[in-house]
Amino acid sequence: MAELYVVGIGPGAYEKMTVEAEQVLRRCPVIAGYQVYIELIREYFPQKNFLATAMRQEEERCRMALDAAQAGEDTAMICSGDSGVYGMAGLILQLLEEGNWPDVKVQIIPGVTAALAGGALLGAPLTNDFAVISLSDLLTPAEEIQKRLRGAAIGDFVVCIYNPSSRKRKDYLKKACEILLEYRNPDTVCGLVSQIGRQGQRMEILTLNQLKDRETDMFTTVFIGNSRTRKIGKYMVTPRGYRLTKMSGEEERQG
Amino acid sequence: MAELYVVGIGPGAYEKMTVEAEQVLRRCPVIAGYQVYIELIREYFPQKNFLATAMRQEEERCRMALDAAQAGEDTAMICSGDSGVYGMAGLILQLLEEGNWPDVKVQIIPGVTAALAGGALLGAPLTNDFAVISLSDLLTPAEEIQKRLRGAAIGDFVVCIYNPSSRKRKDYLKKACEILLEYRNPDTVCGLVSQIGRQGQRMEILTLNQLKDRETDMFTTVFIGNSRTRKIGKYMVTPRGYRLTKMSGEEERQG
Repeated sequence: MAELYVVGIGPGAYEKMTVEAEQVLRRCPVIAGYQVYIELIREYFPQKNFLATAMRQEEERCRMALDAAQAGEDTAMICSGDSGVYGMAGLILQLLEEGNWPDVKVQIIPGVTAALAGGALLGAPLTNDFAVISLSDLLTPAEEIQKRLRGAAIGDFVVCIYNPSSRKRKDYLKKACEILLEYRNPDTVCGLVSQIGRQGQRMEILTLNQLKDRETDMFTTVFIGNSRTRKIGKYMVTPRGYRLTKMSGEEERQG
Repeated sequence: MAELYVVGIGPGAYEKMTVEAEQVLRRCPVIAGYQVYIELIREYFPQKNFLATAMRQEEERCRMALDAAQAGEDTAMICSGDSGVYGMAGLILQLLEEGNWPDVKVQIIPGVTAALAGGALLGAPLTNDFAVISLSDLLTPAEEIQKRLRGAAIGDFVVCIYNPSSRKRKDYLKKACEILLEYRNPDTVCGLVSQIGRQGQRMEILTLNQLKDRETDMFTTVFIGNSRTRKIGKYMVTPRGYRLTKMSGEEERQG
């Protein structure tokens, strides 16, 4: 009986990992993951057996990790950001259904996803309700993505976009902006963050109309404000209705 | 010149805090926050000057923290979950506009929000696009919340609900479920998680129809699956279209 931990390591910088993720990685003799993410953490965890696979080999990577755990070694499968949000947790749980790894106990360890890490760099874009949408149509049909964008626009959600474009999908972000522009003001405050917590980190605040013509890459996370999002100094802020007077309402919890 | 860090401490358990949050709290002589959150961390950080305020005193709390930093002491303002998602980061940046704290440098430190921590306990509900909605109408008009619910339903988003109800708002979750039931199957897979990472943590997977009549509290986070969300064993999983065959598409980044 061994453990397979599916671990969100955060956006990239070591210190954005949770204490729990760090403890799990120290404890496990085997660490599996996409080779780029393995390189982000390798120096901090010497003496590990690293199982790295190339991009697009998600299923093979998951099977390797499950096999290692089934063989009796506690194994950590790392994901960038969170382990659930577009991460490997779902695939691991789907594979378990096959029944081939009866001695593996799976634990999902959450992490700071790009929406949160990028939001913190831009200011506070997510202080009110928000939607997270991936523009990658690798695993989701394009019509479904468009339906999501319309639903988010109708609901006046702040929208956080993952995988806004890549070499083969240069105009996806433009199309997404065009859909949102049917509902939202061209001056809507938007933000871009690239390489969060990694070398070359940069960010920018711009309008929805400017965003439409901006080229991005798959290491960029995009934030599109709702109708109330403002630029305050150098920050992108979505107010939550705090009236800057003492609160008189009922109890409420935070995020 | 002193720093004011707005720090997301995660859902409650110490180890769900990021390494960065822990480092910041160790470094700052002053820690401000809602008294319940201060109690969650007090034992780990002895010798600090704690500035605790009661519920509903968000603005007073933020002003105290800004004043402490303006007086020259590095200060950490703690938020449960993430510092941005329904957290204090937005209010701090709005207050800065008043110009009363010219020597304060603000830094926002992200944390694991309840959507991620709760999702990890339930399995992998957020592997596809999702929307986060608070049902508290303390700071958002009820009509706006309903518009959000409809937008999320139209977009077939997985929906994560914060503040589903409280003593004075007993039927809010029921109303939200009724709106979603106009668009979604009554058998839609849903999940409840309470007291994430704290004593009394519990979870449940149930249908949307069952969820409608369930009483919750403000320490519960609710997950409503999309049209493809399934129950796999004891887990709630939203597949992402992984066909369990080798991928042949283009590159893509994770969460």
